[in-house]
Amino acid sequence: MLNPLATTALMTALDEHRVITDHSTREIYSHDETPKYCLPLAVVFPRSHDEVVAIMRIAIEYGIVLIARGAGSGNVGGALPSPQSIVVSFECMNQILEYHPEDRYIVVQTGVITAEIDRIAREHGLFYPPDPGSAAYSRIGGNLAMNAAGPRAVKYGVTRDYVMGLRAVTGAGNSINSGCRTSKGVMGYDLTRLLVGSEGTLALITEATLKLLPLPEARATLRVCYASNADACRAVSRVMNQAVIPCALEFMDRFSIQAIQAAGSATDLPAGTQALLMVEADGVASDLPRQIDALQTALAGTGLLDLQVATDKAAIAALWIARKALSHAVKNIAPLKINEDVVVPVSRLAELVIHIEYLAQSYDLPIVSFGHAGNGNLHVNIMVDPIDTNQMQRAKHALHALFSEVLALGGTLTGEHGVGSEKRPYVTMEIDADSLALMRLIKQQFDPHQLLNPDKLLPAQI
Amino acid sequence: MLNPLATTALMTALDEHRVITDHSTREIYSHDETPKYCLPLAVVFPRSHDEVVAIMRIAIEYGIVLIARGAGSGNVGGALPSPQSIVVSFECMNQILEYHPEDRYIVVQTGVITAEIDRIAREHGLFYPPDPGSAAYSRIGGNLAMNAAGPRAVKYGVTRDYVMGLRAVTGAGNSINSGCRTSKGVMGYDLTRLLVGSEGTLALITEATLKLLPLPEARATLRVCYASNADACRAVSRVMNQAVIPCALEFMDRFSIQAIQAAGSATDLPAGTQALLMVEADGVASDLPRQIDALQTALAGTGLLDLQVATDKAAIAALWIARKALSHAVKNIAPLKINEDVVVPVSRLAELVIHIEYLAQSYDLPIVSFGHAGNGNLHVNIMVDPIDTNQMQRAKHALHALFSEVLALGGTLTGEHGVGSEKRPYVTMEIDADSLALMRLIKQQFDPHQLLNPDKLLPAQI
Repeated sequence: MLNPLATTALMTALDEHRVITDHSTREIYSHDETPKYCLPLAVVFPRSHDEVVAIMRIAIEYGIVLIARGAGSGNVGGALPSPQSIVVSFECMNQILEYHPEDRYIVVQTGVITAEIDRIAREHGLFYPPDPGSAAYSRIGGNLAMNAAGPRAVKYGVTRDYVMGLRAVTGAGNSINSGCRTSKGVMGYDLTRLLVGSEGTLALITEATLKLLPLPEARATLRVCYASNADACRAVSRVMNQAVIPCALEFMDRFSIQAIQAAGSATDLPAGTQALLMVEADGVASDLPRQIDALQTALAGTGLLDLQVATDKAAIAALWIARKALSHAVKNIAPLKINEDVVVPVSRLAELVIHIEYLAQSYDLPIVSFGHAGNGNLHVNIMVDPIDTNQMQRAKHALHALFSEVLALGGTLTGEHGVGSEKRPYVTMEIDADSLALMRLIKQQFDPHQLLNPDKLLPAQI
Repeated sequence: MLNPLATTALMTALDEHRVITDHSTREIYSHDETPKYCLPLAVVFPRSHDEVVAIMRIAIEYGIVLIARGAGSGNVGGALPSPQSIVVSFECMNQILEYHPEDRYIVVQTGVITAEIDRIAREHGLFYPPDPGSAAYSRIGGNLAMNAAGPRAVKYGVTRDYVMGLRAVTGAGNSINSGCRTSKGVMGYDLTRLLVGSEGTLALITEATLKLLPLPEARATLRVCYASNADACRAVSRVMNQAVIPCALEFMDRFSIQAIQAAGSATDLPAGTQALLMVEADGVASDLPRQIDALQTALAGTGLLDLQVATDKAAIAALWIARKALSHAVKNIAPLKINEDVVVPVSRLAELVIHIEYLAQSYDLPIVSFGHAGNGNLHVNIMVDPIDTNQMQRAKHALHALFSEVLALGGTLTGEHGVGSEKRPYVTMEIDADSLALMRLIKQQFDPHQLLNPDKLLPAQI
């Protein structure tokens, strides 16, 4: 139970109705997209930076752990409560503070829904490029915490690339303003990008200044079928080795295709299709035919079975339905998906998918792979039944083998999901001991009482 | 004098001929582009990461301050020796370690000359976008230390945006590897971007993995004359408020024009020209006419006197000669230029130049302004004679007034030059006390013995 003095202090700082301790509400905030669960002591809903400062100071006074939470749509337990913690939900911090279309930036509270930023930008012919699959409901604070990305990252980059400045409350209860409102600025250490991707372990980010770009006037989508995973991945390498950078380059393997077909999508694929690429180009309308030509040339090669181009809105939407249905469709294959998020240099992608096929055979496991192939970023889903202990054991070994191969190919273990609680055991496979020691020291400076999401990102210390 | 034991240790680690203590060599390394001077105890020339580790450990053992140095072409004293320090020159660390054109990245030692990276990239139809004015001789390590930029930043961003990973030696003598070799990666805190722009105060960066982009096939340059600074700056705002982002958008005021005309350039400008814009577009050849049209439309407006377009290589080069002659030409106006590097949101640029005109009048000082207007980044040069103490005093006041106005306009005090030694007195005008305290704590973790460039970036503590 939460210390009654702390409860009173929080209720004084925030108003009673934004400090929730009833069981059913705490249940809602007890998990994210991972299958894990931990009931928090309370959930608080600040409305302003100053209220977040107040919460942090109360947490320090009573020694209570705080878990920052946007929509709870993360894949790695980043927003999973720790035992005896309070969840700080940013859902009520949903104000657009400033919008300067003439200077292409917007200042928002971090509880604003990601897609809302994009929607507002579009009112002035701009857009907000990062587009995680969760954009319709995720909060920008969660995107910042995890350095979220999505299909458009292949051309436009990730959340980090669109953050000009932040306002935040450190674990010491101090307010900091980082960055600037201009497209250049080199004053002091880059605290902005240190906070982006820090998963709520260094500070509670309350406000963000985000860069916007001019909205491309037209787009075109290509759906391309291949006879094998490796054929499709070699086409990805060819596409990423010529000058037209697509604004999406998504890959789906055979199992992904089966899953979406079972759900009624993409039933028109030619026989023998074992892999699918979805490729999108954007730009000025007059230049799109040239882009499509160049992409078609790069996509042509061994194993190409079919290539369809859509340029009008309805046809583009129809082609994308399959990809959008995928995450949910995959869940029907087995009770649990162990959802990985590895990345390799694009030229090594074919080697990676061949290795994954080998792992699926060797460990006798269904492995469904799809993802942002243009970035070399593959979502590798090992499908398991958690009550089958033998299968779970095989999955564990397969995972380790997968990670070793990814690193051997010059890759990284997570491209956009982050570490959270789920990947903590694997951090030391990738990050050297001295870098990790520095990260721990940095954490200690920002969060001297170890109250901010303490069981995330950095490996547990034994 | 350097401790003889330290000298011996360095000579053992590096070979004798790469540990230089003679006076004339130390003279060469005693200054950078600022008018300041401090003779180092020695200059050492490591060839490898391991030699840098050895130097750092010797520095720790004997308590010697180390000053990392690329070409010494910085504007703010970033590479200026401290008293009793050793300069670590990266000139011999000039190896290209790996080049992966198919994955669009290159791994280099940090003593490689910036332009050399671009040259190698072009062999495979790629380029390295950041283009500081010093690119022909600056070392990439200096670019990383200062987060260098240049004209192309308006479209392509700054050094930070092209760093995928780093290898470095901390002030504790530890080796760290940060980042990854893929276009996405979110494992751990972003040490890469913490080191970029840290001005040699946190670690000695030995190797860098840099992202490359496809080289645009064609470009076009517009030279545009205006009747006033404000007219030109309003045109800049219009250009940056439509969809075609130029790859350069440079501004020159009346004094800049006079300086280059005195040096024999740009003698064909129409009468009444008080300000000049240089605008460049790049992309596929077939799309350039559309870009030029859009830019011309945006550039048209009050005060436009002349607009010339060049699309062939020779004509483009001819137009740019004036801009390239500028930095040197300005030096003829007065013995000393106090060279500032302020940034404001682009829509506020006209207000800034009007304020600068007011400062020049009020303080009776020649102030020459030019720079990367598309980023709102103006090089404001207060021209003075250092032996005129009254003028120097007026310049000091003008500088303070300029900085106050820049911050009031939502800007930042340095866009690309950095803080170094020169802007330390002004850091607290922009960075809040709690952020600064965190920066000091971070410095302490990376450099526990305070041996790395101790008199730079962070304000002196009283």
